[in-house]
Parts: sequence; structure tokens; C-alpha cells
Amino acid sequence: MSKKLTKRAEDYSKWYNELVVKADLAENSAVRGCMVIKPYGYAIWEKMQAELDRMFKETGHQNAYFPLFVPKSLFEAEEKNAEGFAKECAVVTHYRLQNDPDKPGKLRVDPEAKLEEELVVRPTSEAIIWNTYKGWIQSYRDLPLLINQWANVVRWEMRTRLFLRTAEFLWQEGHTAHETEAEAIAEAELMNGVYANFAENFMAIPVVKGLKTESERFAGAVETYCIEALMQDGKALQAGTSHFLGQNFAKAFDVKFTSKEGKQDYVWATSWGVSTRLMGALIMTHSDDHGLVLPPNLAPNQVVIVPIYKTDEQFEEVSKVANSIMSDLRSKNISVKYDNRTTFRPGAKFAQHELQGVPLRIAIGPKDLENGTVELARRDTLTKEVVALDALTDTVEGLMKIIQDDLYKKAFDFRAEHTTKVDTFEEFKNVLENTGGFISAHWDGTTETENQIKDITKATIRCIPEGYVEEAGMCVFSGKPSKRRVLFAKAY
Amino acid sequence: MSKKLTKRAEDYSKWYNELVVKADLAENSAVRGCMVIKPYGYAIWEKMQAELDRMFKETGHQNAYFPLFVPKSLFEAEEKNAEGFAKECAVVTHYRLQNDPDKPGKLRVDPEAKLEEELVVRPTSEAIIWNTYKGWIQSYRDLPLLINQWANVVRWEMRTRLFLRTAEFLWQEGHTAHETEAEAIAEAELMNGVYANFAENFMAIPVVKGLKTESERFAGAVETYCIEALMQDGKALQAGTSHFLGQNFAKAFDVKFTSKEGKQDYVWATSWGVSTRLMGALIMTHSDDHGLVLPPNLAPNQVVIVPIYKTDEQFEEVSKVANSIMSDLRSKNISVKYDNRTTFRPGAKFAQHELQGVPLRIAIGPKDLENGTVELARRDTLTKEVVALDALTDTVEGLMKIIQDDLYKKAFDFRAEHTTKVDTFEEFKNVLENTGGFISAHWDGTTETENQIKDITKATIRCIPEGYVEEAGMCVFSGKPSKRRVLFAKAY
Repeated sequence: MSKKLTKRAEDYSKWYNELVVKADLAENSAVRGCMVIKPYGYAIWEKMQAELDRMFKETGHQNAYFPLFVPKSLFEAEEKNAEGFAKECAVVTHYRLQNDPDKPGKLRVDPEAKLEEELVVRPTSEAIIWNTYKGWIQSYRDLPLLINQWANVVRWEMRTRLFLRTAEFLWQEGHTAHETEAEAIAEAELMNGVYANFAENFMAIPVVKGLKTESERFAGAVETYCIEALMQDGKALQAGTSHFLGQNFAKAFDVKFTSKEGKQDYVWATSWGVSTRLMGALIMTHSDDHGLVLPPNLAPNQVVIVPIYKTDEQFEEVSKVANSIMSDLRSKNISVKYDNRTTFRPGAKFAQHELQGVPLRIAIGPKDLENGTVELARRDTLTKEVVALDALTDTVEGLMKIIQDDLYKKAFDFRAEHTTKVDTFEEFKNVLENTGGFISAHWDGTTETENQIKDITKATIRCIPEGYVEEAGMCVFSGKPSKRRVLFAKAY
Repeated sequence: MSKKLTKRAEDYSKWYNELVVKADLAENSAVRGCMVIKPYGYAIWEKMQAELDRMFKETGHQNAYFPLFVPKSLFEAEEKNAEGFAKECAVVTHYRLQNDPDKPGKLRVDPEAKLEEELVVRPTSEAIIWNTYKGWIQSYRDLPLLINQWANVVRWEMRTRLFLRTAEFLWQEGHTAHETEAEAIAEAELMNGVYANFAENFMAIPVVKGLKTESERFAGAVETYCIEALMQDGKALQAGTSHFLGQNFAKAFDVKFTSKEGKQDYVWATSWGVSTRLMGALIMTHSDDHGLVLPPNLAPNQVVIVPIYKTDEQFEEVSKVANSIMSDLRSKNISVKYDNRTTFRPGAKFAQHELQGVPLRIAIGPKDLENGTVELARRDTLTKEVVALDALTDTVEGLMKIIQDDLYKKAFDFRAEHTTKVDTFEEFKNVLENTGGFISAHWDGTTETENQIKDITKATIRCIPEGYVEEAGMCVFSGKPSKRRVLFAKAY
């Protein structure tokens, strides 16, 4: 496989697919649509998990684990949810294989080991969880119930792409139960806010918080809150969703509680999730034609040191300096790797770390030893500078914050440049075709108009942005009156 | 449900099942044989995960993630492994449900959405992983490959028990690839050592390290190393296994590498795993008739503070002291919870924390405020003492280590008392019937004898202990010559 990446301007989609594989993030597996997350990609996902987990616990949530399988009778209990996921679910029908009498050495399903009731591999866990909550919730004392699960889920997607859309993916799903409607809505909003905060401050990805329209809502939700990010090719990516589920699941699974006043009522619910799809958002927000660009918060190695040497003695001296730099940086909680592999030349190492997005690279050679300096290269700007050894730790520490902030700012500016207000459908189509990005336009509020716009342009309403300003206008498509602009875009 | 636990002496098995549910660790789900791990149980599992993960990384391993499904053709490639797991595997045959034409509102499998090739839900991941490694390993430069995965697996067990044997369970599985046989054996031994270290120093569970006999080996392994623990009822529990797989999987999946000398050879492999079964080992090593007993290392809350008060003023004053104690303890990295719920009386709180095994309980009442003291209760010994406030932090900090050590010592002494050397089969049967525990006896080395002993007594060879001393003797069953004693026991 060639080391050279396709350029983004040439073919963005090809660039993405190549980058994911060449940077050792993930690859396709022998199972249709399922990916292997490779160690480097998984290390980034672990950093996301750790921070999200911290944020969930800080907001009062606990982790638990529910079964992988959903019996068909539970799966179909909440009708809309079932309808939404029935077309793409993996179904377990048997619990044993046996030797195939016709093909020696091969196995086949044992026809006598057919399950009485089929098991659906969870595409999402509302059904199995609400069936469990029925046993956990009797009184207001049991509420709120604030639970999160880290798990794998399966949705039998027909067209898959690494991280963006895979048959199996990893995610977290929060499932909460509340006494009142207002409290459940507040929870759904709170968690959408947690996601926005995480995306912006940890991943350096600016997002728009908003509400989905009816046609884009989660199957079984009353409202779906979301965060929407804008990728470099002008397409939007839904990066997280938080659902207010009303009493739909409580009614489907008969989950009632006795209030302080002694009355029986159905419980109010939310669910919320983000997935390994965030890896796709990360890649398509920051990376460039040279490969991955990682914000320091998410980099498995924030700094890499590459020794330059010809003789064993030089190697030894360089290594001494490298070790001392490492211990200084680690004392500041900066992760650093010394790439002292002897099987690769410095040029190959530089290329690999560039491809894998290590934020800072330090090179140390014999000249540096003489001068008491190192060469410091920034991955995001591809700039180099010579830094005195005794200023290195402070410089690196400062750059960690600067790079993180710069990446956010760059993405923020890109989004600002690619968010366009339009007032006619001509403009709408022009912008979509030429610059892409978010289009802020009036909409008459009907699913019919939304669908027609989608059929003609492939753009969908990404969200009704939070805190929009009321503004009288006319629907960009139907000309009917509208009270606010919504955000359209083509989307992943 | 009554709050009282069945006593261990009455019915150990019932005691266990009740404890798991009443202490809020786990419960059965709507899916046959699959459990729900409740937040309190999951918090303990997370502590195990964090420490194991740290130990794996410290020994050079990286995490990755491989697909949940194994295509049948890969599943059957390593014959012994396939044979070992075929009888208990969940099989996905369809990828869609549709409305059932005969039953309105119900779904059924869509007969047109039958998979061309069935997918096995992983019971273990050697097949899918070695099929992937084929693409990752070309040369000695790619070795060793040291990878771990945290995942769920499914084995369709007919008789299930919470944590001990469930159709779905959580585990970690390490899968490594090496240049030489010696290196792979060293890895398998290293990881069995990591497990022993973890069990003893973190979980306070003494274990015997050893090798499995041929009939107890993992399906597809050349050797299986294990750690065996002894439960309070005199039955053994296999707490972790580490397998030297030889070149079996490399041959089945054609994974070769080019050596430094330019020769092609098959790669050598190991795999190793521990699971949520460890929760069962934890419970049955330390707990008592009052409920769970947790070593401080594994306790989600190491200390709980219960306020005793009659008036609001007293509650306020007690809370002030509690808050100050909490900040002192937290500064020493001791986790502490203030149980200030107003919906429960102190007695109920005491009972709950006892049932849930919180290592230390601090009670503060009006008299304590006057005297500058608190009441400190140890869960493991069920003893109480009055401690001066200004000595509290030091006392608690000291007790964290003392309790951890005492629990280990108690379990160690129990095992010593329940490990018996026997030289005749009469003795063997007597010991098994009366005291139970480990029986150290000579064995002639044949599977035939092993099976006969098992048929008669239900005892199996738990392991050939590591570092055994050669000792001439006669097989306890066949009377044939034997060079060493092995450990027998009835087992979970």
C-alpha cells in the first residue's frame, strides 16, 4: 500500500478512507460492515471514554450493564421504536452448531437448537432497560434513576464506512427515569449540553446545539436534542443526540411510580448517546493532506522524540538528553514517547508521526547536543523552530494549550465561513452546490416541505438551533410564513 | 423480599444467590441466562477493570476492539476450538424483522433477509482475531504483537448462576503473537502471574498458580495456565486462565512471519482472560451471613458516614463535622459517602451498608459532638470503637491497609485449613465429603483415572501446581507410580 495519501481536494471520501487505514485507526473486518478498531484508534477512543465517563459521573450518573440480546416480544413493545429498528437488526435464532453431515469438517446450525423466541442483538437498549426498570421503580424515592451503559450495538446498515456507519459500533447510552416531564426535559437538555461541552472543549470541534424536526427524531422519542458539527467537505455530521422520551417507554413497559402525594403515574424518560462515530468527526474536522491532526487532549502521545545519529556514541548521548526531556515532560503530565526504533530511519519516523497526528515532534541530533537545543515541530501548522533545552518544557506545556485552542478556532472560523443565510431557493441550491456547509433558511415547519427540499437537494434540516431568535420570514421553498430560520446541510 | 439473608451454614448456594440480588450487585434479566449488572456491582467491576488495565499496559499491552460476530467459516477453521464451543453458541441467521402478517402489531424474522453465511456471536475471539492478525504480521518487526480486548462474549450455558456462569458475560481477552515458542510460553506465564498478583494483592484472594491437565485445557490450547481460588464452601473456583496456543491458530489462519534470518515460520500464540466471574470469587471468599464484605481496594465507597440526629439543628451540626471528615479523607484518596438521606432511619442505613460491604462506617450523633468523637465500625470484623475526631483520618487510613491485609490472611488461613494431603482413595472421599477444600494427592497422569475419579466423586484436577516438588508416590486411585501431587477439588 502506498504511503501517500490522496489529497482532500481530489477526493475527500477517498482521503478519509485511506487516512483511517494508514494512520492505523481502524480497518474493515471479515464480517460485513463490522470494523476492527486498531490499538492506535482505540487509544484515542479510550481518551474520549475516560473524559465522557468523568463528565457523566460528575452529573450524578452511574454505570451499569444490560443484556446484549432483546427478546422479540420486548423489542416490539414500543411500536415506533420497533418500527424504526426492525429493518436493520441482527437476529439470533439458534443456540448451537453441529457437524454438517454433508460436509466433513464443516459446521451447520443445529435444527433442533432453535430458540422458542428470537433474540434481537440490541440496536439500542430502551426496550431491555425499561423492562428492567419496571422492577426497580416503585416510588418517587427510586427516582431519578440516572444510568449509563458503555456497550456495543448492532444496526444492519447496508452501506458502511469506517467509524461513520458500521454494522457494529461502540457507544454509551444513558437511560434515565424521572418524576416529572420538566425534570426529564431538563435532563435531556443537560446531557446535550454535556456533549456540546465535550465536543468543543475536549475534541476542539465546534457544534451547534439544537432540536431535530419530527422526521429526524429518534424512533420513539418526543423530542431529540442534538449536536451538529461541520466537516471540512461542507457536510454536517450529527455528533450526539439526547432524547426526551416522554412516557412512551414507561407506558409500553408499564413502569409506574407512587408520588409523594400517593398517586400512581407513569415515569418520564430520557436516553442519550454518542458513539465511535465521534472518531469520524475528529478526523474530518482537523486532519489535512499529510494525515491525522490530533488535539493534545486526545493524542495517545502528545509528544514524540526522534533521535538523529550516525554512531552508537551519538545515539547514547542523544538518548540521555531524550530521557531527561521525557522525565521533565511527564512531571507536567504530558505524554511523551521516545521513538528509538533502530529498524526505521528518522525520515520514516517523521512521516509516520505526521500521518498519526502526534501534536509535537522533537528531533535531537549531534548539532543540537553541541548547541543545547532541539528542533520542535508542530503537527497542526507544520512549522518548526529551534528551542533551547532549558526552555523546552515550558514551551511544550504552553503549546499543548495553544494547539488545542488553535484547532478549535480554525474549525470555528471554517464553520463561520461555511454558514450562509439564504432567502431564496435559488440561493439555497447555489450555496449547497458551491460552498456547501450550513445553510440558515426559513422553513414553513411542515414535513412535506422538508421532504421536497431533501428530494431535490439531498440537504436535510440538521436542527432547529437552540436559542434561535424569532424572525418573521418566508419559507425558502414554499413561500409560506415562517417564524425562524433552521439549519440545513447535506449530512453524513 | 425479606431483608434477612439465608445463613451460609443453612444453604450456601441460596445465601449466594440472595446476596447478589439483595446487595444490588446483579439480577437475572428477561433474556434466559443473561444478567443485568446493577450500578453497585458494576462499580466494583470497574475497579477491577481499571487495575487490570493498568497492569496490562504496564506489561506492554495495548487495547483494541474486534467484531462481535465470527463468520461460521472462520469459527470452524481451528478444529478443536470450534468443537469446544460449537455446542453452546448463539447464531445470527437473519438481519431483519418484518410485520407478522398473521399477528397484527407483532414482528417476525423476514425470511428474505437470511444471511448467506451464519454469524456466531463470539464465545471467545481467537478465530476473528487470528484472521485479522494475518494482515498485520509479515515480519519479525511486527512481533511481538501484544493486544488486549475488553468485551462481552456469549456461551449458551444451560445452567446459569449470576456472575459464575451466565450466557453473556463481560471479560478481557489478551491475544498475543510471538517469534518463538519460548517467548510465547513466557508470555502465558507472565500473564498468569499478573492474574495471581491481581487476585492476591488487589482482591485479597489467595490463589494457586498451576497448569491444567489435558482434559481441562482450553479448546485449541497446548497448555492452559490457571489460578485457582478456594471458596468458603470448600469448592474451588477457576479465577483466570492463560493459554499457550502453540502454532495452532497461526496454522489454521495461515499467519507466517519472515524471521531476521529471512526464513518463513508460523507465529506462536497466547490468549488469556478473566471475566465478571471474578465477582463470584470475591463474594464467596470474603462475605458473611450479614452480607457482602469488600476489601478496601474494591469498595466503591470505602467509608460511609451516617448522621444520628433528632432535630434539624443537630443534623446541621453533625453535617458540618461530616463534611470536614469527608474533605480530610478525600485528601488521602479515601472514597467516602455521606448518607444524609432523610427517607431512611440510621438502623436501615446501617443494615444496607453492612449488606453492601462498605469497609468502614462512621456514625456521628449529638453525644459525639460533645465529646469530639465518632463511632467507627469495621465491616469485616463487625467491631466498633469510639475514635477521637483528631485521630480519625490517621486511624481510617491505617485501617484501609489493615482490613485489606486481614481479609487476605483470613482467606489464606482458611485455604491452609482446607488443603489436605491424602494418600488413599478412602481418605480422598472422606475429606471431600467432610471438610471439602483442596486435596493434594498423587495421580498417575492419565485422563482415564482423572475421569474415573470425577465420575465417582465429582472432584476434578484443579491444577498441577506451579513449582511442585517431585515426590515419588502412588496414584491415589490406580496405585500406579506418580512423580508429583496435584490439586483436586469439587469446583464451580
